[in-house]
Amino acid sequence: MKTIDICISPELLHLYNLEDKVVVVVDIFRATTSMVTAMAHGIDTIVPVAEIEDCKALGKQGYLTAAERGAEQVKGFDFGNSPYSFRGDKLRGQKLAMTTTNGTLAIDRSRNAKKLIIGSFLNLTAVTRYLRMENENILVVCAGWKGKFSLEDTLFAGALAFKLQTSFTFLTDMVLAALILYQTADEDLLGFLKKSAHYQRLIKISADIHKDLAFCLEIDKYAIIPVLDKETGALKSFEP
Amino acid sequence: MKTIDICISPELLHLYNLEDKVVVVVDIFRATTSMVTAMAHGIDTIVPVAEIEDCKALGKQGYLTAAERGAEQVKGFDFGNSPYSFRGDKLRGQKLAMTTTNGTLAIDRSRNAKKLIIGSFLNLTAVTRYLRMENENILVVCAGWKGKFSLEDTLFAGALAFKLQTSFTFLTDMVLAALILYQTADEDLLGFLKKSAHYQRLIKISADIHKDLAFCLEIDKYAIIPVLDKETGALKSFEP
Repeated sequence: MKTIDICISPELLHLYNLEDKVVVVVDIFRATTSMVTAMAHGIDTIVPVAEIEDCKALGKQGYLTAAERGAEQVKGFDFGNSPYSFRGDKLRGQKLAMTTTNGTLAIDRSRNAKKLIIGSFLNLTAVTRYLRMENENILVVCAGWKGKFSLEDTLFAGALAFKLQTSFTFLTDMVLAALILYQTADEDLLGFLKKSAHYQRLIKISADIHKDLAFCLEIDKYAIIPVLDKETGALKSFEP
Repeated sequence: MKTIDICISPELLHLYNLEDKVVVVVDIFRATTSMVTAMAHGIDTIVPVAEIEDCKALGKQGYLTAAERGAEQVKGFDFGNSPYSFRGDKLRGQKLAMTTTNGTLAIDRSRNAKKLIIGSFLNLTAVTRYLRMENENILVVCAGWKGKFSLEDTLFAGALAFKLQTSFTFLTDMVLAALILYQTADEDLLGFLKKSAHYQRLIKISADIHKDLAFCLEIDKYAIIPVLDKETGALKSFEP
């Protein structure tokens, strides 16, 4: 039986062998939620970049640009990191360059995975279906917060573990821990996460962000998965 | 109000500022459990060393020696890492040099803490008392397993969080997660940990180890705390 494991921070990725694994990168608040939303609304290519300057350069080549630092939109870019903004017909057929504090870094450090896909609660079942189909060892890479543990990303990993527990072996105790946390929280994810540090941090920046965070926790709103095209380094939309 | 935080792996210590914190190093299976047991039986000094050779060198200077790698005692040393072996009158007044796979490394990387103490379930209440007395910001450093998350160390951190939650603020979501895991497990720690990867790993090496692991989960058996003497780099016994 293939295995499922969780890496709670990009800072620990050097401890894992990614070459034989499908990596699911997750940054629930809000990078991977935004990516899934953007693709569900017609964006066909997302280029995740680690640096602000690289994002700007792609803007000059005709890409839409999204840049977030410290939970806020960087001036001079088309978008920040609010999934709500990545909706509507204006996105159809466009390409997007995106840089965020934690999410794009996690993708960047996971590029040597056998396959790399983007997960969020919005496309949970689609991700599950893809992972069953591939039937490879799985590593969920949580973007975390500045290298540290993040509860919302771990809850997503726990949700995957819950759905896949009969088909995949738990490789480490982190998977068991994530499953328990998810089962504690699943009846009211938003209520549970109101206690979390990241929720409190975001809500201080803008009370308006509440609807953003509630959106991030909607399950199975979309059926698409951003999948890394290893040749171009861009994410492409895939519907399993 | 002062804060409590948890670092789940020595590999993440570079993200933390230790200078203003009391660090509690924990390696339940079995290094810190063994250290507490040894001191409770009269060892007055423990020198934790990262390398086998350094341990051997101290042996030549009259120290008792303990060395563990891959969960087994290294040949040529007085002890391995079984807390059971660190009992009896033969230890009284002796000095001990000790090296283990994960625990002593965690201590080594935490040396620039304001204060550094050793925690285990065996001295849980003594540690709690010490932390209340000091009233400084707290960081629980989990030894983990080869850089990765370990459930038993996190449960100890959760037990501390449970006891200290009215007097210290939870600094990050990891504390909340550890508290939830502890509250899920606390009625039967051993039964809960039987599902863990580390338990399964140890039990494969020796079925006999079961009583060792049960011992590691006994709460408040001893009242002493090993405290780092920053001048000498050795752990000294302290009863708060």
